[in-house]
Amino acid sequence: MPYIPLSEKLPGITGLLDYRKDTAFHIRHLTQILLRGESTLSEGERELIATVVSQGNECTFCTAAHTAIAEIFLNDNSDSIVEKVKADIDTSPVSKKMKALLKIARATGKNGRLVTEEMVAEARKEGATDQELHDTVLIAALFSLYNRYVDGLASVTPSEPAFYHRLGKILKDKGYLPSENRYAEL
Amino acid sequence: MPYIPLSEKLPGITGLLDYRKDTAFHIRHLTQILLRGESTLSEGERELIATVVSQGNECTFCTAAHTAIAEIFLNDNSDSIVEKVKADIDTSPVSKKMKALLKIARATGKNGRLVTEEMVAEARKEGATDQELHDTVLIAALFSLYNRYVDGLASVTPSEPAFYHRLGKILKDKGYLPSENRYAEL
Repeated sequence: MPYIPLSEKLPGITGLLDYRKDTAFHIRHLTQILLRGESTLSEGERELIATVVSQGNECTFCTAAHTAIAEIFLNDNSDSIVEKVKADIDTSPVSKKMKALLKIARATGKNGRLVTEEMVAEARKEGATDQELHDTVLIAALFSLYNRYVDGLASVTPSEPAFYHRLGKILKDKGYLPSENRYAEL
Repeated sequence: MPYIPLSEKLPGITGLLDYRKDTAFHIRHLTQILLRGESTLSEGERELIATVVSQGNECTFCTAAHTAIAEIFLNDNSDSIVEKVKADIDTSPVSKKMKALLKIARATGKNGRLVTEEMVAEARKEGATDQELHDTVLIAALFSLYNRYVDGLASVTPSEPAFYHRLGKILKDKGYLPSENRYAEL
């Protein structure tokens, strides 16, 4: 049971963004810029960052939702790329640059002070740019907001995997911006 | 030394919000709505929430900045209200409702899963509304973003208290929205 009255049809973050739309407007636009805007990181790579941060913060809803959308963007049908990243970044089938950025992201999600000079130097050695470092940290900070918003108000976490596949498809097709009948197919 | 090149004249969050203005636009507007918009919590109470979250996340810059602005709004010239809250919420000179909300905020800043039904029931017993509970958690989630943005990129933390008094005055006079020559008097 959520701590405040939220629509039963809108679990997780979806009901919270519906509860207060003026704040949701800016959260949605910020997310759209960072996860879908112009970037040298692919949509799939940025959704992987959202996933490992949510996993590190133990937010079950956000982890499942962004696993689903990362799998769509990475065409991850049979290789289990996302699951391998979640199991162990170091041995996962992503680039060395992404491994370094994902470690910075997960550290940021727990506490920004855990990001060390060595972690940044490793990412730069593998080719990470200033902008990629900036965006990795800000995406991790944004998902730290989402994780806390979702869990701090005890919003509902559906248990069936099909729910997250439907949500992932909506996020793929519609992005993060506000839209009419956004969750009609949820 | 910050991990990415930031203006030396703009320490802490100020240089980060200057580094990428499209994302900063929405972060600033979200903050303005939550901390200065219409609310049954006063500006001083909302700045107290920002302060205890930042303190709990050990973000020195954010804690000092929001201590300064909370003191201005609370007319906290000689009573050390903010310092007493930071030392011990339970014995501090704020209302029972604020104590309950500040504890929810600090828990949220660490991890949303730390907010318990009992903490919410205590706040409700003292008169907290759905909207106040929602906004407390979202402010705490937003400052979790700020804390991680500031520390994850190792932005500069000035040591002189006068800097934070100047920043607090700017936040009092101009709010959080983007503005021209915002930091001329920093």
